[in-house]
Amino acid sequence: MNKKELLNKLYLENLAETKQKVKDSINEDNLIIQTINCIEELTKTVNLNSKRLKEWYGLYNPEKTKEINDNNALARFIVSEKNKEKINDSMGANLKSEDLEEIIALAKHINSTFKLIENYKKYLDTIMTKKCPNLKEIAGYMLGAKLIEHSGSIKKLAMMTASTIQLLGAEKALFRHLKTGSKVPKHGLILQHPLVSNAKQKEKGKIARALADKIAICIRIDYFKGQFIADRLKKELEEKFKN
Amino acid sequence: MNKKELLNKLYLENLAETKQKVKDSINEDNLIIQTINCIEELTKTVNLNSKRLKEWYGLYNPEKTKEINDNNALARFIVSEKNKEKINDSMGANLKSEDLEEIIALAKHINSTFKLIENYKKYLDTIMTKKCPNLKEIAGYMLGAKLIEHSGSIKKLAMMTASTIQLLGAEKALFRHLKTGSKVPKHGLILQHPLVSNAKQKEKGKIARALADKIAICIRIDYFKGQFIADRLKKELEEKFKN
Repeated sequence: MNKKELLNKLYLENLAETKQKVKDSINEDNLIIQTINCIEELTKTVNLNSKRLKEWYGLYNPEKTKEINDNNALARFIVSEKNKEKINDSMGANLKSEDLEEIIALAKHINSTFKLIENYKKYLDTIMTKKCPNLKEIAGYMLGAKLIEHSGSIKKLAMMTASTIQLLGAEKALFRHLKTGSKVPKHGLILQHPLVSNAKQKEKGKIARALADKIAICIRIDYFKGQFIADRLKKELEEKFKN
Repeated sequence: MNKKELLNKLYLENLAETKQKVKDSINEDNLIIQTINCIEELTKTVNLNSKRLKEWYGLYNPEKTKEINDNNALARFIVSEKNKEKINDSMGANLKSEDLEEIIALAKHINSTFKLIENYKKYLDTIMTKKCPNLKEIAGYMLGAKLIEHSGSIKKLAMMTASTIQLLGAEKALFRHLKTGSKVPKHGLILQHPLVSNAKQKEKGKIARALADKIAICIRIDYFKGQFIADRLKKELEEKFKN
């Protein structure tokens, strides 16, 4: 081989190695992040479409849209045969059946979006159980996935201190505090945990702190493939704050 | 009948009359407005979901997501059997088939959203043809519906001057002009008309003005149930600005 051939061989081998590394860098973290983002986006879209459904169907049957407050339930009602049930002196317009069909088409679409969200929640639950059982046990699969999404990966989350985890998702309030001296935020995403959200206002900070401690422990165990101990930690936490 | 009975009778008759009036106030204008809003919202949601699909499927087959730029085409590709086709040295991860299935589920959802949008466009075209054939001819059914939605009803649009119609949808720029003396906006929604959007920059204002004139005439004819003359007006306009 002459020099040129050698260089060319080196180039090709380097290229192959880089491609392999890119390939290997994609792991289940990415699937968790894609799925939780997808769930949040679908939830946003289904809410937007449900608002439209309520207004549109409300032209025909305003009494019913006032009665049914749940988006999912309203869509199911409109898809069902019962959509023709109207009170006798309804203030709604008498739509032609072809106009009503168009509204039912939107309700069907909303129905299937709700089903897709449910499907993705189950899938996310499965990957979380497999990949980070401790985090899932202590935080729940939705909040756990949001924390991973927010930090960027399981590795990055595992390297964070408890106090950083406590404030993940409250960056805006934190920087406002640093800049203007406004109040220090007490919790970010973990406010969504029932232990925190159901607590009394003045207890929230303390519980958020304790929960963040446990989450930090759990995600490190998961990252280093340790044993399952989150059930014990969860019990401790619940005992401590059961009022 | 005594006085109390009379009053009661009066009340009930009034109530019935009001309910009937509310009922009658809902007409095809409302259907046009709901449909155009629904199309715009579904388009927004399908774009959001498509961005997610591109990122998610890109983990598996980044070369393909780079190749196919059209959202609808990408979703159709992923739903088809061809999603398994990958170039040999792809940088994408080897996803398990159950993980790939979840991505395909999103692509299917996006596909059906695109179909629903198409369906609503046809429906809107039908109502517009029936209710305002002249406006539809001159402006197109999408732009025509947006103008009705923006003004609130066919009646309100019919009462507007051409210069108001020209600036419908550019309210923000108009008030900025009045307040700060910035440039006067030349067009609002009607910029979407191909005659305006395809024109040279310095011609746009003039064409928008002429188009708004014709739209004002057309919507008045439609509102007062006049004859169909929009094809003639459209021809005039096209001849004048054919460069």
